[in-house]
Amino acid sequence: MSPGAEQSPADPPEANLNASGLPRVAVTMGDPAGVGPELCLRLLAEPRIGQQCVPIVFGDAELLHRVARQLGLPWHAPVISAERWSAEWSQVREPAVLDLRRLRAEEVVPGRVEAACGDAAYRCVMAAIDAGLAGQVAAVATAPLHKEALYAAGHHYPGHTEIFAERLHAPRSCMMLTSELITCSLVTVHVGYDEVPDLLSVERILDVIELTDQAMARIRGRRPRLIACGLNPHAGENGLFGRREEQRVIGPAVERARAAGIQISGPASPDTAFIPSLRQTTDAYVCMYHDQGLIPVKALAFDSAINITLGLPWPRTSVDHGTAFDIAWQGLASPHSLFEAVRLAARLAV
Amino acid sequence: MSPGAEQSPADPPEANLNASGLPRVAVTMGDPAGVGPELCLRLLAEPRIGQQCVPIVFGDAELLHRVARQLGLPWHAPVISAERWSAEWSQVREPAVLDLRRLRAEEVVPGRVEAACGDAAYRCVMAAIDAGLAGQVAAVATAPLHKEALYAAGHHYPGHTEIFAERLHAPRSCMMLTSELITCSLVTVHVGYDEVPDLLSVERILDVIELTDQAMARIRGRRPRLIACGLNPHAGENGLFGRREEQRVIGPAVERARAAGIQISGPASPDTAFIPSLRQTTDAYVCMYHDQGLIPVKALAFDSAINITLGLPWPRTSVDHGTAFDIAWQGLASPHSLFEAVRLAARLAV
Repeated sequence: MSPGAEQSPADPPEANLNASGLPRVAVTMGDPAGVGPELCLRLLAEPRIGQQCVPIVFGDAELLHRVARQLGLPWHAPVISAERWSAEWSQVREPAVLDLRRLRAEEVVPGRVEAACGDAAYRCVMAAIDAGLAGQVAAVATAPLHKEALYAAGHHYPGHTEIFAERLHAPRSCMMLTSELITCSLVTVHVGYDEVPDLLSVERILDVIELTDQAMARIRGRRPRLIACGLNPHAGENGLFGRREEQRVIGPAVERARAAGIQISGPASPDTAFIPSLRQTTDAYVCMYHDQGLIPVKALAFDSAINITLGLPWPRTSVDHGTAFDIAWQGLASPHSLFEAVRLAARLAV
Repeated sequence: MSPGAEQSPADPPEANLNASGLPRVAVTMGDPAGVGPELCLRLLAEPRIGQQCVPIVFGDAELLHRVARQLGLPWHAPVISAERWSAEWSQVREPAVLDLRRLRAEEVVPGRVEAACGDAAYRCVMAAIDAGLAGQVAAVATAPLHKEALYAAGHHYPGHTEIFAERLHAPRSCMMLTSELITCSLVTVHVGYDEVPDLLSVERILDVIELTDQAMARIRGRRPRLIACGLNPHAGENGLFGRREEQRVIGPAVERARAAGIQISGPASPDTAFIPSLRQTTDAYVCMYHDQGLIPVKALAFDSAINITLGLPWPRTSVDHGTAFDIAWQGLASPHSLFEAVRLAARLAV
């Protein structure tokens, strides 16, 4: 392979697809002492994933070998060294491991918080972001980080979202939680309860509606049906409660979205918006604050929701669980959420 | 029966139980044009209800006869006239109808909003409150009112809660929604989103915790396990989000409750508080605002939740559905919610 095989972000979008038209998806290994490595091994061995995309685990080959041996997991995926990646990425046609070697694999103790693990996990995420920016992968799916380990390594981020946000300067982006049962995107996320009303604007709500509509159109393969929730009890009951946020900002955003052809209703009374009969006819909810969306998502789909960051230069998905240190390297962790995160990343990318 | 058989609220609590020790429960008929009358007829005919309490339907006998004939429903319950009630209430030992005659039964059209119906429904509620104040019934369960009909009759209340609150001047009371799957009580209810933080005080939260603990102890027959939710995302993440409501008011209220022997944890992160594994070990949630409690209740138990007003001189329960004018007098309405409301009222009363 010659250096001429390299492609820059200026290349056409097809650049990050492989020869069979499947998108390459960077899958970060997560904290080495958590369940991330074993989930990545199961992912590489899952034939159905390989029919939908080319997953490339951004991690440490020696550590993955150690976990594979301990759990008796098969491993046939080729390993690409970090040095060879820039020359070879465009030729990757099957599930593979990018060996970043940021770790002394023999020193990792499953379930233990270590700065070295936090640093290695962080480096995997940064490498995946760089690969996305370089147009080498079409999407990124992330296995869980451990916040304490990340902090111990001097990386002061509450989680992936903030790392991506800082590195990518996305002018508009939002978090969406999706599952078979319910999907919610969030107009505001990690802010105090009392800060929410002032953060609601027609423009921000419209951004989230549009991002949600685009993402759900890709996921569903058809025009989605959305509901925008009100902010106040009973959506303010015609201005009786609250500061008329439904009339001043949420309603106008919904009207502008409808004028643009988006199928959305609302502002809906938040408490009845999520009843079973409405869930059946609603592809996604646009929620005004963190708990308005996350309470029903976690109550109904705790084990199966995928976290998607919309509005980045390329799709980014994440499992909905943590590092699960208590069961790390024991073969007990379900790979379902990671499989779904990778599938969704691929579906959103093409 | 002589007037001497009458009893005042100063009598011992047993006064409102019948000879077999079962509590008398006033059941208001609700709007005559809605599903209330047929649900009351089914209630009177349900033998299992009669084993737990003595339901007395506060309504209109002629209207009930009309509905019974139309739907072919059995009716063997004795009818007591309003004039004879004050002399005979203490002798009521089986399901009965108190005939308030506030209505021209032949003029009622099912599904139609009428001031006459709104007024009749209101009079039933007032009669039930009077019976409760007089110690003649141990609890009240209410069938649904129609707000428009109520307003048309000049009774400007959004619903039962406000009628009871105005008439009874309860110094502390709260709304609790309960079902087999989930129970939530509310520290604040019908106020704007942005008013909530200033309405949270240690005293108010402690009141709601204590009322919830007492009610759930009666319902479960054992010491209940409660969770108090935080106000902010992730319960403020140690003060990172919000105005430290978790540290300033919710946490201290929880500590005082625990010091008093109440089994309560929190402030919990609101989004993970309602996941299935926590629901299994939690008898009730103390929620800071309307949608924090009602979103999970309606998402999980839309058809089966019962609304209880705690902190009144006697228990008051309500069905969780409306008048359902579209299916009134058709025999289609499920009596499940009313049965449960009456059972709960009885259980809370003794």
